Amino acid sequence: MLFSPVVEHLLESLRVLPGVGPKSAQRMALHLLERDRAGGERLVQALHEALERVGYCQRCRNLTEHEVCSLCEDARRESTSLCVVESPADLMAIEEAGGYRGRYFVLHGHLSPLDGIGPDALGLDLLEQEVRTHRYQEIVLATNPTVEGEATAHYIAEQLRPLGVTFSRLAYGVPLGGELEYVDGGTLSRAFSGRQPFQS
Amino acid sequence: MLFSPVVEHLLESLRVLPGVGPKSAQRMALHLLERDRAGGERLVQALHEALERVGYCQRCRNLTEHEVCSLCEDARRESTSLCVVESPADLMAIEEAGGYRGRYFVLHGHLSPLDGIGPDALGLDLLEQEVRTHRYQEIVLATNPTVEGEATAHYIAEQLRPLGVTFSRLAYGVPLGGELEYVDGGTLSRAFSGRQPFQS
Ligand SMILES: [Zn+2]
Ligand SMILES: [Zn+2]
Repeated sequence: MLFSPVVEHLLESLRVLPGVGPKSAQRMALHLLERDRAGGERLVQALHEALERVGYCQRCRNLTEHEVCSLCEDARRESTSLCVVESPADLMAIEEAGGYRGRYFVLHGHLSPLDGIGPDALGLDLLEQEVRTHRYQEIVLATNPTVEGEATAHYIAEQLRPLGVTFSRLAYGVPLGGELEYVDGGTLSRAFSGRQPFQS
Repeated sequence: MLFSPVVEHLLESLRVLPGVGPKSAQRMALHLLERDRAGGERLVQALHEALERVGYCQRCRNLTEHEVCSLCEDARRESTSLCVVESPADLMAIEEAGGYRGRYFVLHGHLSPLDGIGPDALGLDLLEQEVRTHRYQEIVLATNPTVEGEATAHYIAEQLRPLGVTFSRLAYGVPLGGELEYVDGGTLSRAFSGRQPFQS
């Protein structure tokens, strides 16, 4: 142990942050202790408050410190379509991309029986209740394009099919601005088989 | 504002950490809120405790939560030599490199009149008192090999010269394992003029 026990404990605790190894933990700790104690205090307060107060929206499970999140409260959002995502980060990515004006539902994960993550953990009862109550025309199943994301989308579609709603899934294809030679084979073959008429 | 106010405030506060931009702040906040709230609580506690308790050693100004740090308390350290460094990170780098078994003094910066950093801010009175009291044979002026570090080393040597102590400075030269063509010109010319007899 090179630093004092209290500093060592801080170094160790900083490593709960994703992407932070021993060297960056040391740089962060010394920066806060040597140059920005006021910033450190603000971080303590902000993190404490977020952990205490931020939970799931009672309607869509988005992160919020209120009972219902600002997206659910926003009467200008179109209530004809509901977009189901795995994480708040996915919701933010879709919002930042722009274009979608409907509502969301956040699963906070995907089905993973081996890890004990079943329909309960993903709030699928709440999702069914939301779809029953609000009579969406379309459910966009925007889970990740992975084996688990696909399986979760299929499970949800099966569960909600009796409600007579239409499902969609994000298009697979080559990313905009990417170069074909660097696109992986699976993506390329999906993009090929899903090719569209060309409007010239 | 995409996230709720409490989450946005957390994102902003995480950016006091060096090297953390908007994207990593988002990844960190969502990781703590979604997957590791217990780790987040530990970080709150550890950072709060460190900011409350960690200050400067009354003898060497190393970071410690005690009055005197463990290096100063360690009777096995050689008390013939004192190594003066700009920061606790420099002290740690020298300790990790191994070889030096003497004592330290931490300036927490270098002289910088334009930023109002003078002898008081660097604890030079305390340094003089330490040298007077403990009769070191050698003071290693291990401030950074920069203009400011050099100036600080010269200032300290002038101040302590009446005490009849010997000063040394880390050797300049090419870094071990480096390739000459990638070494900057200033370093190379210092290494050249400081060339040593070769023992073959
Ligand atoms: Zn909501
Ligand atoms: Zn000390």
